[in-house]
Amino acid sequence: MKKIIYFGNKGSYSEKAMNAFLNIYDFSEYIIESSGYIDEIITTVDKNDDIIGVLPIENSIEGMVRETMDKIILTDNSVKIYQEIILPISHCLINKSGKLKDVKTILSHQQALAQCSNYIKKLGAKNGCIIKKQTSISTSEAVKALETLDNSYAAISNKEAAQIYSKKIADTQINDEKDNKTRFICITKKNKEKTGNDKTSFVFATQNKPGALVDILSVLKESGINMSHIDSRPSKKVLGEYIFYVDIDGHIEDKTINSAIKKIKAAVKYYRFLGSYPSITVV
Amino acid sequence: MKKIIYFGNKGSYSEKAMNAFLNIYDFSEYIIESSGYIDEIITTVDKNDDIIGVLPIENSIEGMVRETMDKIILTDNSVKIYQEIILPISHCLINKSGKLKDVKTILSHQQALAQCSNYIKKLGAKNGCIIKKQTSISTSEAVKALETLDNSYAAISNKEAAQIYSKKIADTQINDEKDNKTRFICITKKNKEKTGNDKTSFVFATQNKPGALVDILSVLKESGINMSHIDSRPSKKVLGEYIFYVDIDGHIEDKTINSAIKKIKAAVKYYRFLGSYPSITVV
Repeated sequence: MKKIIYFGNKGSYSEKAMNAFLNIYDFSEYIIESSGYIDEIITTVDKNDDIIGVLPIENSIEGMVRETMDKIILTDNSVKIYQEIILPISHCLINKSGKLKDVKTILSHQQALAQCSNYIKKLGAKNGCIIKKQTSISTSEAVKALETLDNSYAAISNKEAAQIYSKKIADTQINDEKDNKTRFICITKKNKEKTGNDKTSFVFATQNKPGALVDILSVLKESGINMSHIDSRPSKKVLGEYIFYVDIDGHIEDKTINSAIKKIKAAVKYYRFLGSYPSITVV
Repeated sequence: MKKIIYFGNKGSYSEKAMNAFLNIYDFSEYIIESSGYIDEIITTVDKNDDIIGVLPIENSIEGMVRETMDKIILTDNSVKIYQEIILPISHCLINKSGKLKDVKTILSHQQALAQCSNYIKKLGAKNGCIIKKQTSISTSEAVKALETLDNSYAAISNKEAAQIYSKKIADTQINDEKDNKTRFICITKKNKEKTGNDKTSFVFATQNKPGALVDILSVLKESGINMSHIDSRPSKKVLGEYIFYVDIDGHIEDKTINSAIKKIKAAVKYYRFLGSYPSITVV
């Protein structure tokens, strides 16, 4: 069965990203589902050629979504990025009363809590308490959970989630940095054909010798390839041993990219291709 | 007043790191305090020449502690790293009953929860529920908080914290990767003199042009300087704009290091020295 699975519940930011995705592609024969577990979505996509997953991967304030990155890069699965969607994020504080003064505990996804940490501190000072932060599996799940809780609980999510779960918006634009954007990815087992305006992502681990990382990045520079992003995650085995994640401009079928990647593959200890794909920004 | 402030409460991993620090230096005239807020410790150290802070900065499973890194690198403060302490981490599940079957909610610091995420999932499957995760400001604070909670709550921390707060150890070695280590740093306003076995840390932001990062890293390679670690954090302004954190072998007073750093400073948009310091590993 053909399926699109987005992260979170109805009203989540990933659902918004999926809607933007569905505006540009015809996936009308696909059934839409949601899942609260990033790792489960990745595993499901990996096992089935007819499933597409929609997940957050990077935020402008908090950086890479560690859960998504670790599951994608540190497992043997062969899922690839098919499309990137960049979404502006505007968090609201949502509760039952619509009043700020009652709030003593705030629920949300770890990244959303982190994106509003100054706001939460200031609200605590106003309300005369240290506000407790409680992690939910997604921002929309946090709003849903308010149902069985009293007025001292609030959730961080978007206004659509407040509407869907019939809760009140106590405050808007509560993210510490107003220009807050999140990168979502659509993952599949399929390779995306070249559009002429693509990015390519891959991960690698270098040989353990001085200058190994510079050697790899120099291959890109010497080929005139622009690296738009580099990040690293622990190998989870040895403190200080890292796997590098890189985004470059261009498609894997471009001659320059293809030959640079061949050189890189020959020089590294570990390499995994994560896909060549186009990007859209939702305004 | 001369003071050492460690992160968390009595029984925290930072207190253990501080004790290792006090074993090698004579700071007997210093008063010992603790604080649950990483950012407050950094601000206090920044304002006073006679205060030392002890904080976690990197874990082998979860990577850089974002709160520590962001506060140090993204503010104008002039605190420096004086000593690095690497500590093995072995998490316990702690509660009032000492029984696993009652556990429905687990409290701890976000990084400790992440380090035990597979364990928590498996325990949930056994107990027939999805275990709720609740973020505390530190692992020791989580154990302290159990006092007013019932048997369905447990905390992740170390065995010393269980003893200090008279709670029971329900399970040991619950971290997903058994070889789990955390890097702690002692921060002061003082520069640490050369010991002959030092590391140097700095952060920088590159000019926004292709190959800018490679150019910087090449300066290190060409000078024969070993880069032991590189990481990045969002600038928090623009999605994809990053500040890089680098550890190199050697002291800022070494001629080679000093001249390489001069070249780097001249080429980057932003540079901040984070200190030259020795490292000890607790076994």
